Amino acid sequence: MESMGNMIRTHSCNDLRKANVGDEVVLMGWVLRRRDHGGVIFIDLRDRWGLTQIVFNPETDPEAHAKAHQLRSEWVLAVRGKVEARPDDMANPKLATGEIEVMVSELRVLNSSDTPPFPLDEDIEVSDSLRLQYRYLDLRRPEMAANMVMRHKAVQAIRTYLDDHGFLDIETPMLTRSTPEGARDYLVPSRVNAGRFYALPQSPQLFKQLLMIAGMDRYYQIVKCFRDEDLRADRQPEFTQIDMELSFVDEEQIITVTEGMIAVLFKKTLGLDLTPPFARMTYDEAMSRYGTDRPDTRFAMEIVDLTAIAATCGFKVFREVADGGGTVRAINARGCGSFSRKDLDDLTSFAVQLGAKGLAWVKMKAAGEWQSPIAKFFTDDERAAIARELDAVEGDLFFFGADKPAAVCQVLSELRLELARRLGLLKKDVFNFTWVTDFPLVEYDDKEKRFQALHHPFTAPREADVDRLETDPASVYSRAYDLVLNGTEIGGGSIRIHQRQMQARVLKVLGIGEEEARDKFGFLLRALELGAPPHGGLAFGLDRLMMIITGSDSIRSVIAFPKTQKATCPLTEAPAPVSRKQLTELYLRPDWKE
Amino acid sequence: MESMGNMIRTHSCNDLRKANVGDEVVLMGWVLRRRDHGGVIFIDLRDRWGLTQIVFNPETDPEAHAKAHQLRSEWVLAVRGKVEARPDDMANPKLATGEIEVMVSELRVLNSSDTPPFPLDEDIEVSDSLRLQYRYLDLRRPEMAANMVMRHKAVQAIRTYLDDHGFLDIETPMLTRSTPEGARDYLVPSRVNAGRFYALPQSPQLFKQLLMIAGMDRYYQIVKCFRDEDLRADRQPEFTQIDMELSFVDEEQIITVTEGMIAVLFKKTLGLDLTPPFARMTYDEAMSRYGTDRPDTRFAMEIVDLTAIAATCGFKVFREVADGGGTVRAINARGCGSFSRKDLDDLTSFAVQLGAKGLAWVKMKAAGEWQSPIAKFFTDDERAAIARELDAVEGDLFFFGADKPAAVCQVLSELRLELARRLGLLKKDVFNFTWVTDFPLVEYDDKEKRFQALHHPFTAPREADVDRLETDPASVYSRAYDLVLNGTEIGGGSIRIHQRQMQARVLKVLGIGEEEARDKFGFLLRALELGAPPHGGLAFGLDRLMMIITGSDSIRSVIAFPKTQKATCPLTEAPAPVSRKQLTELYLRPDWKE
Repeated sequence: MESMGNMIRTHSCNDLRKANVGDEVVLMGWVLRRRDHGGVIFIDLRDRWGLTQIVFNPETDPEAHAKAHQLRSEWVLAVRGKVEARPDDMANPKLATGEIEVMVSELRVLNSSDTPPFPLDEDIEVSDSLRLQYRYLDLRRPEMAANMVMRHKAVQAIRTYLDDHGFLDIETPMLTRSTPEGARDYLVPSRVNAGRFYALPQSPQLFKQLLMIAGMDRYYQIVKCFRDEDLRADRQPEFTQIDMELSFVDEEQIITVTEGMIAVLFKKTLGLDLTPPFARMTYDEAMSRYGTDRPDTRFAMEIVDLTAIAATCGFKVFREVADGGGTVRAINARGCGSFSRKDLDDLTSFAVQLGAKGLAWVKMKAAGEWQSPIAKFFTDDERAAIARELDAVEGDLFFFGADKPAAVCQVLSELRLELARRLGLLKKDVFNFTWVTDFPLVEYDDKEKRFQALHHPFTAPREADVDRLETDPASVYSRAYDLVLNGTEIGGGSIRIHQRQMQARVLKVLGIGEEEARDKFGFLLRALELGAPPHGGLAFGLDRLMMIITGSDSIRSVIAFPKTQKATCPLTEAPAPVSRKQLTELYLRPDWKE
Repeated sequence: MESMGNMIRTHSCNDLRKANVGDEVVLMGWVLRRRDHGGVIFIDLRDRWGLTQIVFNPETDPEAHAKAHQLRSEWVLAVRGKVEARPDDMANPKLATGEIEVMVSELRVLNSSDTPPFPLDEDIEVSDSLRLQYRYLDLRRPEMAANMVMRHKAVQAIRTYLDDHGFLDIETPMLTRSTPEGARDYLVPSRVNAGRFYALPQSPQLFKQLLMIAGMDRYYQIVKCFRDEDLRADRQPEFTQIDMELSFVDEEQIITVTEGMIAVLFKKTLGLDLTPPFARMTYDEAMSRYGTDRPDTRFAMEIVDLTAIAATCGFKVFREVADGGGTVRAINARGCGSFSRKDLDDLTSFAVQLGAKGLAWVKMKAAGEWQSPIAKFFTDDERAAIARELDAVEGDLFFFGADKPAAVCQVLSELRLELARRLGLLKKDVFNFTWVTDFPLVEYDDKEKRFQALHHPFTAPREADVDRLETDPASVYSRAYDLVLNGTEIGGGSIRIHQRQMQARVLKVLGIGEEEARDKFGFLLRALELGAPPHGGLAFGLDRLMMIITGSDSIRSVIAFPKTQKATCPLTEAPAPVSRKQLTELYLRPDWKE
């Protein structure tokens, strides 16, 4: 292997154009492909920026040509050469550098490579675990490299925007105290303080509130957060949050500054011009129209409430649900009347898996005729009324949900998405933002037999509802807001409680007495007694946001070194065993089978 | 307490000038001071940006004036009012807003405050632990707020510069595998993988090398790192690193891009124009001239080697050291001939604490006379020769060290700094940068009886020395470089080994065989076999850098929520006990006395 010697790179592998013809250049990069044609060797040299074709001609430089014969995929080269125009019929219009090639006069082989465990120049299926084990190879693939570049651009755009708007980037501790976010903490045993543990932050929630109380006025941080939860496809043990907090503002100012940030983000990453203000919808409206507080508004297919009709109809199942305080709702899958028996069976299983007892469907035929197992239970008038409510025409297909409201919402909202998936309505190049506002402050937890905060215990109640806090907590709305993009909650936040008395009242509603409160976050309560300004903020999930921006199917595609669903890293083999001495130093003993 | 209602802040408390006279404005902030003069109430309203005097006149608004009577320190206000010019004799030229005041027409008390545990408007001594317990109050003090703003500006300047220079901000994992950095890891038990532990990173060293192997070309990250070490004044369990790595470059290119970054940093924070290139010095030169690889070049007082003279002199102590392979060196404290007996006693104790057996000193009198306990052992010629070497004149004071070179270096380098401290030579507004280069690759560890890497095991040896790796490792220099600012190492790095064979050879020198290597960082070794480019980088300690930039005496002053020397947080009381259930979930049992 050779050193770079006196060679200094002059261009990236994506720089050279026809205007460079005649220039002497130095390129460095990886061998993507080698082709030999009539004694001439052609190599696609790759770096982060792109590809350039380099050419070894035995007549130009016999020595380099001879060396080039040994080159294999992923070897690392430095080449000096002259930029030449490709003959017109050899130009590659798909490649930015496709009009030129570099005739090599000096070759240095900076490193060799074993044959990679999977090829990088073909779009073949590679197992996730192999990709993660050889992540450094996986990241060489242009799509993955582009994701990393996009993520960099995104955070840089956000940072610049927030800097321009008076936000201070302030770091909060990683070794901290368990915050009451509800999820399980990752713990870090202390060696100096026997029997005590740090927790890795689930979010910097309390610290950012303290920073507002400290007068920092506008804070942001792009920060790692941690949850030791059972993992799903979209979850990682550590994830990155764009965390913001502002003082002396209300919802409107926070929403405005956030919309500006999102607009800049999409401009700087995708070149798109979003046009704030974004749509807004109350929680109640989102639940009734979409059955979820994360409405995907890229398509309509809204949920329609038919309880009134159902209450008097001839179909006993519906009638009983309506009479028993339940709800009957439906969605109209426009033009899906041609769905097959199998389609309907699949959708029925889908609904049953979500907890439905079955799935009533109706195919709308000509002249308002219904093709449906339940057609016979409805009068002509009822059918007409239902069709009117659903705005149904010939060729439509509709589905009913009849149950308690929460159950119906869950089934119909998921069914709506499944239908959209089948119909290709979930377009990746459409970006529909919706603010969901006016959430309930609390919800009743049937298992724990107490009220839980819908967001977190520091969310302010709506001022107009405060009088009902103790008497009818379920009717109190909060000053929380979520930003939903294409059916995914990408961010959320609230105006916080900044007064000690109010915080105590809300904690009491949540069943947290003064003593427990003082024990868990006494420092926040104390801070509220020492001049806390009105404040609020929000946090975005960067990984999910980048997944949507890059059109990726998994958040793993936008994280350089992600973990598996078992929270392991196939590359480094973390987590790993430690020595007994290390445990002893931490005042711990094993409680596992070795 | 009142809400902000329809009041929207129009200016910060540092915005208003004479040009604003007549404007109606809305300010929000904290009561710093209240003064009552002839029925009129004056309040200094404070926010992150500054102070504005607001005035409550019973004639302008009797209602606001009446409310203002209740206001106390640190209450939170929103005020509407009219900007008025202060009478010339009442203007405060020290205050940016000193020419105006705001005559309040509407006051809303947004929050009250208990009496703070320490006053914020006086420069009184407050204990560190009280400051940390009420950090949110401490951060309201203008010096502390200014430090946070400065740190924000610093990281923003660095990010913008690195973005402009092709660096990608890429996040590396926090839950990772122990890296072989030498210090103790913070461990995080895995719940999903019984008996296995993550380690919090001591640095992203291996990940950034993997990112280079992945073709990312230029990486940076401003990232938290962790070391579970016994804490000293300048150390925190978690600290922040500016971490960089570049491919296809050598030392020169890395130094150039880094110097550009430092210049931008100082320009954007302090408004200073540094003039790269910075001074450079080899390790050997730094050791011989300053006795340390972190030379403080703000002042001279260099170490002079007098071994040759000592070898033949009449002072037996010196002669024996010189004959025994030791060294005799001295520094000249210019103009310190007037130091008292007590000064000299103090300096002698200082040297003894550092391991010296004593401290020989000489006061230079007129006509080359020595006043010194050892004067009698030297001939006139020897005295003249020593004075010549030390460039000594009447009124100077010099100190000798005679011992093994390492011991002499330690004593004289520390003594040099102590003298500079006493002489006021450590000016906080002077910024002297020095690159120290050409470090030894390894040093012999007498305790462990083996060679240790002076930087880390991935540092490349100098090419010219590679042949001596196995035969004379101590003579091999590395391609490492440190950047020293005013005697503090603020950053360091190296060209890394990018070839599998070379890495194996260096590991072998360090006593790490193939098997141990494979076990500890086999993934890196494997990556070196799959097309690793030449690469190198460096890392800066952000906390220490900010301490110097802000002229602070402690890194705690530039960290929003630092820990004590016992690694605790007096604010949140982290670390804290956890439940037995939490431990059981992690397959751990307590091994401490409850």
